[in-house]
Amino acid sequence: VTFTAGVVGLGYWGPNLARNLASHPQFRLTALCDADRTRLDRHGAFYPAARCFTSLQELLATARPDLLAIATPVASHHRLAKEALEAGCHVLVEKPLARTSAEADELVQLAARRERHLFVDHTFLFTGAVAEIRKQVASGALGDLLYVDSVRISLGLFQPDVDVVWDLAPHDLAILNYVVGRRLVSVRALGSSHNPRGTADVAYLHLDYEGGIGAHLHLSWLSPVKVRRMILAGRRQSLIYDDLEPAEKVKIYDHGVAFDYNDPETQRQVLVSYRKGDMRAPALSVSEALSTEMDEIAQVLDGRASSRAGGTEGRAVMQALEAADRSLKAGGAAVSLDG
Amino acid sequence: VTFTAGVVGLGYWGPNLARNLASHPQFRLTALCDADRTRLDRHGAFYPAARCFTSLQELLATARPDLLAIATPVASHHRLAKEALEAGCHVLVEKPLARTSAEADELVQLAARRERHLFVDHTFLFTGAVAEIRKQVASGALGDLLYVDSVRISLGLFQPDVDVVWDLAPHDLAILNYVVGRRLVSVRALGSSHNPRGTADVAYLHLDYEGGIGAHLHLSWLSPVKVRRMILAGRRQSLIYDDLEPAEKVKIYDHGVAFDYNDPETQRQVLVSYRKGDMRAPALSVSEALSTEMDEIAQVLDGRASSRAGGTEGRAVMQALEAADRSLKAGGAAVSLDG
Amino acid sequence: VTFTAGVVGLGYWGPNLARNLASHPQFRLTALCDADRTRLDRHGAFYPAARCFTSLQELLATARPDLLAIATPVASHHRLAKEALEAGCHVLVEKPLARTSAEADELVQLAARRERHLFVDHTFLFTGAVAEIRKQVASGALGDLLYVDSVRISLGLFQPDVDVVWDLAPHDLAILNYVVGRRLVSVRALGSSHNPRGTADVAYLHLDYEGGIGAHLHLSWLSPVKVRRMILAGRRQSLIYDDLEPAEKVKIYDHGVAFDYNDPETQRQVLVSYRKGDMRAPALSVSEALSTEMDEIAQVLDGRASSRAGGTEGRAVMQALEAADRSLKAGGAAVSLDG
Amino acid sequence: VTFTAGVVGLGYWGPNLARNLASHPQFRLTALCDADRTRLDRHGAFYPAARCFTSLQELLATARPDLLAIATPVASHHRLAKEALEAGCHVLVEKPLARTSAEADELVQLAARRERHLFVDHTFLFTGAVAEIRKQVASGALGDLLYVDSVRISLGLFQPDVDVVWDLAPHDLAILNYVVGRRLVSVRALGSSHNPRGTADVAYLHLDYEGGIGAHLHLSWLSPVKVRRMILAGRRQSLIYDDLEPAEKVKIYDHGVAFDYNDPETQRQVLVSYRKGDMRAPALSVSEALSTEMDEIAQVLDGRASSRAGGTEGRAVMQALEAADRSLKAGGAAVSLDG
Repeated sequence: VTFTAGVVGLGYWGPNLARNLASHPQFRLTALCDADRTRLDRHGAFYPAARCFTSLQELLATARPDLLAIATPVASHHRLAKEALEAGCHVLVEKPLARTSAEADELVQLAARRERHLFVDHTFLFTGAVAEIRKQVASGALGDLLYVDSVRISLGLFQPDVDVVWDLAPHDLAILNYVVGRRLVSVRALGSSHNPRGTADVAYLHLDYEGGIGAHLHLSWLSPVKVRRMILAGRRQSLIYDDLEPAEKVKIYDHGVAFDYNDPETQRQVLVSYRKGDMRAPALSVSEALSTEMDEIAQVLDGRASSRAGGTEGRAVMQALEAADRSLKAGGAAVSLDG
Repeated sequence: VTFTAGVVGLGYWGPNLARNLASHPQFRLTALCDADRTRLDRHGAFYPAARCFTSLQELLATARPDLLAIATPVASHHRLAKEALEAGCHVLVEKPLARTSAEADELVQLAARRERHLFVDHTFLFTGAVAEIRKQVASGALGDLLYVDSVRISLGLFQPDVDVVWDLAPHDLAILNYVVGRRLVSVRALGSSHNPRGTADVAYLHLDYEGGIGAHLHLSWLSPVKVRRMILAGRRQSLIYDDLEPAEKVKIYDHGVAFDYNDPETQRQVLVSYRKGDMRAPALSVSEALSTEMDEIAQVLDGRASSRAGGTEGRAVMQALEAADRSLKAGGAAVSLDG
Repeated sequence: VTFTAGVVGLGYWGPNLARNLASHPQFRLTALCDADRTRLDRHGAFYPAARCFTSLQELLATARPDLLAIATPVASHHRLAKEALEAGCHVLVEKPLARTSAEADELVQLAARRERHLFVDHTFLFTGAVAEIRKQVASGALGDLLYVDSVRISLGLFQPDVDVVWDLAPHDLAILNYVVGRRLVSVRALGSSHNPRGTADVAYLHLDYEGGIGAHLHLSWLSPVKVRRMILAGRRQSLIYDDLEPAEKVKIYDHGVAFDYNDPETQRQVLVSYRKGDMRAPALSVSEALSTEMDEIAQVLDGRASSRAGGTEGRAVMQALEAADRSLKAGGAAVSLDG
Repeated sequence: VTFTAGVVGLGYWGPNLARNLASHPQFRLTALCDADRTRLDRHGAFYPAARCFTSLQELLATARPDLLAIATPVASHHRLAKEALEAGCHVLVEKPLARTSAEADELVQLAARRERHLFVDHTFLFTGAVAEIRKQVASGALGDLLYVDSVRISLGLFQPDVDVVWDLAPHDLAILNYVVGRRLVSVRALGSSHNPRGTADVAYLHLDYEGGIGAHLHLSWLSPVKVRRMILAGRRQSLIYDDLEPAEKVKIYDHGVAFDYNDPETQRQVLVSYRKGDMRAPALSVSEALSTEMDEIAQVLDGRASSRAGGTEGRAVMQALEAADRSLKAGGAAVSLDG
């Protein structure tokens, strides 16, 4: 089976979606849409089989594709996704899904009512590294997850409309929700601002996941060096994910900490034995993340898989960001996420 | 001028103190003391000019040195330091100064009354790296300090009697108090335990210094890799201190973030300009820290300098640790330190 | 002044040349040429002002540009460059300039006779890193250059038609000839083959430059890790160029070795004093190398600069490669390059 | 069984030998010898069971131990080892074994005649890292060894009496002879001097081992950074040994290069397929190398093992150094080592 696909928005990211859809065996790129005629023509030249439109309404009216990919500015996500779902398309929305969790929620519910699939383009989840981490955690290879620490810092581009949390945390939240595989229970956030706008440019988030798993995030626009590093400490093995490592992004350490409760002699005495074992950097898939993502979307449309990055996941990220906002304002108090 | 010196406690650290005192031009090592006769004799053989004692009382009675260095287990620090101060010695105590801030306070006050000097052996403060950082901050080269982030993690030795905060934070607290050069206003701490004793083995401390400077500490015994890294972000320059780097422990980055308030056109608009300048790793002093420390102690005894690691500094570290304890129990609430 | 420009060959590299010429203020992209009509049309769509041709002869006959950039397979370089020079164009040829130094020489001489400029696209020379190295050497900041060691190794793509020397050494040779700024006197090469074709897949080259400066190259397709690292040891300072470092590609070390000949007391005795000074990683230009290259080409055509990568430089690289070939066959004997 | 042991020479290294012999279950330290009476007494105080001597003759006459360890300056190795062997001791000599291969040869032959064991203290061979490399090569895990490249460079201490080859190459030669496990056939050396004494301070050695295995050494006293790194490329796996890595000194890469000769379709066509597999850093033994060395010596004396660092191995290192000397003087010509 193949599916027809369209792309709205041909700015920075849209052309990548178009290229991946056009070259995928299960998709046919049949429609492109951008309000800017010159941009539209230029990209249209590469895809002679796709019809070009300057309005989404026209596109939906005359060339409604099975899947519509939306890569426009975030303010228009909600409106365009709504139109496309109502017209009967499955929809892939660039992240973040919408401006608020309320908007996100409305889209999730609309998609459910119309029985259409809603996907959020959390591309990171489709990298070889994150897929490996998920596999290591889910398979039990690490043992119980003890805690996670993530550092995502650099000399940042100060954004006019968001703070460092909304800029950087979405990546960590999407990854952590996916690899931890538990419900996020509460969020605490401490931030500080050192720029005239007064927006947080340094922040620490503390996430509590079900089962007592804590995750800590250091987010900063003020670090002289760029760091993208996550430690996942497990009872049996631990894992380090360094996204800036060219060759070995994921390292698994067999130096766990083992507590032996069985020996009767040590019932009240604590036995802590250290293993200092091998380190292993598994070979990771080098497929383009976007191509893996399109594979999964095709399988979901075929009914052969479920999505790791659907509307529900997109909404969860937004809810966590809103909870962080409230905690920041409350000086770091824990803010619960309703089950 | 030279000063006579004695060392009590010849276990792990005491012999280093003895060696440095013996070889220093301003000290003469005249007395050694340890309850273990064999150990005493063995070390005594290296220092024929020093008299050997198995009790401190006897030492103080017959060979009272100008400076007594105490390197016994922490439980005896308070008692031995008190005896030595009352006998009229200046005293150098291995860190931590005592078991509680109350004990520390008593020693500080006793020393003041007796007009003796009390030193705490925060050796780290005498390394070339920390001296350089202090110089960079104090000289204004970094500009206003914006925030500090420190990571001190490894696969730790679980200690029977302390948690990860008391094990690792003293280093950070001593260094930060010294290089920030401001009063510590409050402490927050979040911790979690993954071992049967229930002591925290992962903790995050958030320190608020006067002037709105925040410092964040990640402390862990559960990390598969050892990290000792501190970022000091300044308005003009930033600095990274990596204690595990063999050759370039301190790097200074000229990529600051500059806000220009002067241009009238941009009064309400924020102007953020990024400089991506040079990085510089200054040559650091390679003197043994302990030797630099003895230089300073001699100068203090001579009245030519003041100490960077006196009783007051040792007490401040203990007060911060006790505040962290209270915050941990209160689920991360900010605990003030009384001025 | 602006110059018209054309590009022949729209495979992998040609489109980059087209993009840079089209966006440069001193060039107008007026002609594109490729034998493959589909490819030609696709790229032509981006540059409506450029005329499209499937043969160079037609292009030269009807739209002769001031500068013709050739990015076709190496076997056709000599023929196409010759046609273009004879038609009166200045010519930029992708590296390597030709198949042999004889071919290269013919082009150099033809360009001289026709008074046209011949450029070779040694893009590396226009990076911020290599420009900085050149500046450091030429300014005397390093002091006399003592020796250079370069490592360029990885798990290589075995090429059907070249050995590891022809694949990797051109980069080092172009860079070294440029930054050392001396004549290459002789080449030695030792190689070994571990693949069924019998071509060298590991090789060591030893280059002797005028003035007794030696440079050593380790080239390999069999290394499990990728390394691109050059050490330039100078009498006063030394420099390390690591092309895989994301942020600090060039580091300058002030730990030189200084020999003091002045002290009469030490006339026969050797005085070696070590300085262990600062390390500095200068901020490098982040302009795209190709854009800097086009700037220089425009200045050369304007008569305001001379080229760092003209035909003479391209020919010198080929002569060195041919000398390495001869040395390999002679078991590592030194092969002279004629002045 | 236990063996009596003595140590001659209590300067820098001798005390380490004494400490390891004294604490080893199969040795009893019964004699110490040093011409310097003060030094002798100081060290003697630690080992009350050992008798102290200021001359080796007296020691051999009155307290002849089973094993005599010699840690005196190299000029006296030959004479002292000879005396001890003739007196019937087994002998352990600090490296290098002697001043020349002729001296070394005389000792090897004397030991054989007297049926005594002669050991050379190539401590490096007893580290966990080198033992692991040897195991990986010998077990065939790497497949056929293709080539070895070693870099041993730093800002060196210029030695008054040796050049960079004699200073640094002994480590590489001992390690390579041990892990390659083949006969060294010939040596080439290119060197250059940049200091007033005229001794080589930069050198490249090329070693040819039986079976066509080449090893290349970069040795330098002029590098601004310290590097101790060895690449062993194998047909199936490759290995990198970085002695300055604190935690992961040995990394094994499963990205081999595989040539498939079996497919008849590809008989004349070369098939090169690349595997990009896992990397693994095995846990290494953390025993002190000297302690492992003493274990082996005890086993050899017991007749239960043979030595990896006997007189033959010590002599082979010296022969290779002498061959390098001759090649340096002959401008890099290959110098054969006689079988």
